[in-house]
Amino acid sequence: MKNIQTLKGFRDFLPLEALKRQYVIDKLKKEFELYGFEPLETPSLEYEEILSGKYGQEGEKLMYRFEDLGKRKVAMRYDQTVPLARLIALYRNKLYFPFKRYQIQNVWRAENTQKGRYREFIQCDIDIVGSTSLLADAEVVELSIKALQVLGFKKFKILVNDRKVFTSLLLNKDLSKDELSTFVRIIDKIKKIGKDGVLEELSKYGFKRETANILLTKIQNQEKTDTLKDIYAILENSSIAKGQLVFEPTLARGLDYYTGLIFEIETEEYEAGSLGGGGRYDNLVGMFANEQIPAVGFAFGFDRIIEAMDYLQLFPTNLKTSKVLVTIFSNELKDNALEVVAKLRENLINSELFLSSQSVIDKQLKYANQKSIPYVVIIGPEEASQKLLTLKDMSSGQQEKLTLPELIKKVKNL
Amino acid sequence: MKNIQTLKGFRDFLPLEALKRQYVIDKLKKEFELYGFEPLETPSLEYEEILSGKYGQEGEKLMYRFEDLGKRKVAMRYDQTVPLARLIALYRNKLYFPFKRYQIQNVWRAENTQKGRYREFIQCDIDIVGSTSLLADAEVVELSIKALQVLGFKKFKILVNDRKVFTSLLLNKDLSKDELSTFVRIIDKIKKIGKDGVLEELSKYGFKRETANILLTKIQNQEKTDTLKDIYAILENSSIAKGQLVFEPTLARGLDYYTGLIFEIETEEYEAGSLGGGGRYDNLVGMFANEQIPAVGFAFGFDRIIEAMDYLQLFPTNLKTSKVLVTIFSNELKDNALEVVAKLRENLINSELFLSSQSVIDKQLKYANQKSIPYVVIIGPEEASQKLLTLKDMSSGQQEKLTLPELIKKVKNL
Repeated sequence: MKNIQTLKGFRDFLPLEALKRQYVIDKLKKEFELYGFEPLETPSLEYEEILSGKYGQEGEKLMYRFEDLGKRKVAMRYDQTVPLARLIALYRNKLYFPFKRYQIQNVWRAENTQKGRYREFIQCDIDIVGSTSLLADAEVVELSIKALQVLGFKKFKILVNDRKVFTSLLLNKDLSKDELSTFVRIIDKIKKIGKDGVLEELSKYGFKRETANILLTKIQNQEKTDTLKDIYAILENSSIAKGQLVFEPTLARGLDYYTGLIFEIETEEYEAGSLGGGGRYDNLVGMFANEQIPAVGFAFGFDRIIEAMDYLQLFPTNLKTSKVLVTIFSNELKDNALEVVAKLRENLINSELFLSSQSVIDKQLKYANQKSIPYVVIIGPEEASQKLLTLKDMSSGQQEKLTLPELIKKVKNL
Repeated sequence: MKNIQTLKGFRDFLPLEALKRQYVIDKLKKEFELYGFEPLETPSLEYEEILSGKYGQEGEKLMYRFEDLGKRKVAMRYDQTVPLARLIALYRNKLYFPFKRYQIQNVWRAENTQKGRYREFIQCDIDIVGSTSLLADAEVVELSIKALQVLGFKKFKILVNDRKVFTSLLLNKDLSKDELSTFVRIIDKIKKIGKDGVLEELSKYGFKRETANILLTKIQNQEKTDTLKDIYAILENSSIAKGQLVFEPTLARGLDYYTGLIFEIETEEYEAGSLGGGGRYDNLVGMFANEQIPAVGFAFGFDRIIEAMDYLQLFPTNLKTSKVLVTIFSNELKDNALEVVAKLRENLINSELFLSSQSVIDKQLKYANQKSIPYVVIIGPEEASQKLLTLKDMSSGQQEKLTLPELIKKVKNL
């Protein structure tokens, strides 16, 4: 037999999975647009020079790149921020700022699939570009939570920090810039490996245990910065329960990217935790424009969200497309069936016609069952002569005879 | 300055363009689902061996392919039919037939961009797999037209033919199989180059002018096959105006792919013509499953549809996301603005907050103008003390003072 597998880390999405993905995307988009965010699309392929050198060692290793037929060196989209930066430079005079955009596209990374990672996956980002106002920071936090609420998530923990918390160590000359990088990268793991784990790892990198302990305690005892106090104050006006915001001074979220607010959203209802993260990054989007362009954004963990929604049963049970199957009793009664299915569709009821006029009704009912179509319409000779239709409820097995308008009214309200 | 261009044939879609694309996709999906079609997604990358040899010489030349980091030979999606065939073979026991799916994803082809072609573009396909019934053929024709009607297209010409029209020449031994291939490929151009053009080109391929003329006339005088008569009869029950179906015996749509019905939809309102095409192809989808699996489908010309809709002004004028901009009069009145924008969003009115508490109102109005936001809310000290809001209509310039509930009611209905 021929090879018919997908590549490792690449996925087919059969209808039910595809419908779930679409459901999440539609809900998120609607919420993003409620806040005035607009969609944006960039190409799957870029000149390699646009992307290379932007994602650190890891990015260089994992990026899909090749030479195209015209001998151009090209690379596949690795994230949505570098293409955004390119686009901002290219269309600077055509866009209005603050530019609020959302972007939901695939990215490709040659990840280790043994860790359960995918090589093609959706990134879902919201960003506000061109505003230094903390109103922007607060809006991104609020919208991120609202969007997750719209999907059905209820209990959040929003871990919040300000990158400036760490710079205090620099200003006090506790650490050099390089040391700080290492220090921050390691204390970011405190949730996973605990305080002892962090101190242990720091000692491997040459930090004396005692000094490390003092610095860590210093960070843990940091108070909210003015930036965070202001953001909290703005958020008080929104419907975000105050208790959901948790100041977490050890939260670092990577290294040199963020410049102010950083935050992560976790759900307490599902172990795997983080549904996404974001923050302010004022030195990145201007990279191609050769000027500083402030930005603040959030990235939803799309696959994680689907996983969590499956686990928490947050998907509607009627996600399947068809509500009604109109059967064909016999070739003579085919036109009756065609007429009924047309009327159902006119009334915007998702309906299928059984696509054969040669099958016994049992086979047609079986098809409805297999496809979880909840209602079946049967028009036999008796129904046809009485100008009635039989409606069968596939879960209860109950049947009733109705006129077409009655049936439409009934199915519409189900 | 650094290179900030996209690759030739690849496009950025700024918000308005992205919104248009999304509008078309949403409308199409909804209509597809009304007919019980379900979404499907396949990966962007496949093993090269899955795709190679399936698209003729042209496909071999234009396909994006490379070696990945694991030295696997991979290729980028070139169409959606070959991946569908692979998926059908892989999930044969999990899917129920007839399997009705739609698929809207990018494909990549290294086309000659001087011909105005893109190298990354959306394909939008509907297909019914596993039914030989002409009810399926008719359903695909009907849904294709309905979907275009939902987008606002009105006057169609649906060119219809049956590939079997040509096989008559084979059966009568007028032509050999190879000759028929050439003959059909050339007469397919009759609309573009006229009868004389066709005869001329046929003569280049060794057909005597007289014979060619006889055969061409024979084709042109063909009558509808029984298949077409039956499909017409089924379609009479749908709301497709009979006059829109035009039997066109010279229509061929490529060569060896289709096995029965073929059709193309043109709009008479826009020159560039064809909005898509399709037909029955019973020998393709089974290629990986090693059995015959009948199929009938239609491919919408996505970029052409957008072009035509732009030309015919079929996009809603209020496609922009934000309906209202809530301005911030001063830092002191910031909370009032936050409260109003929250209420508007609670009422599902797409609203933006001006993201700075330091800007004069004029600058904020300019922002609304640039972004074509139709309504602006102003809450100055006077409004705040009266518990009123000023609503400014940006197109008429008119202002009125309203209470928040009045304003919500008014904006909702606009």
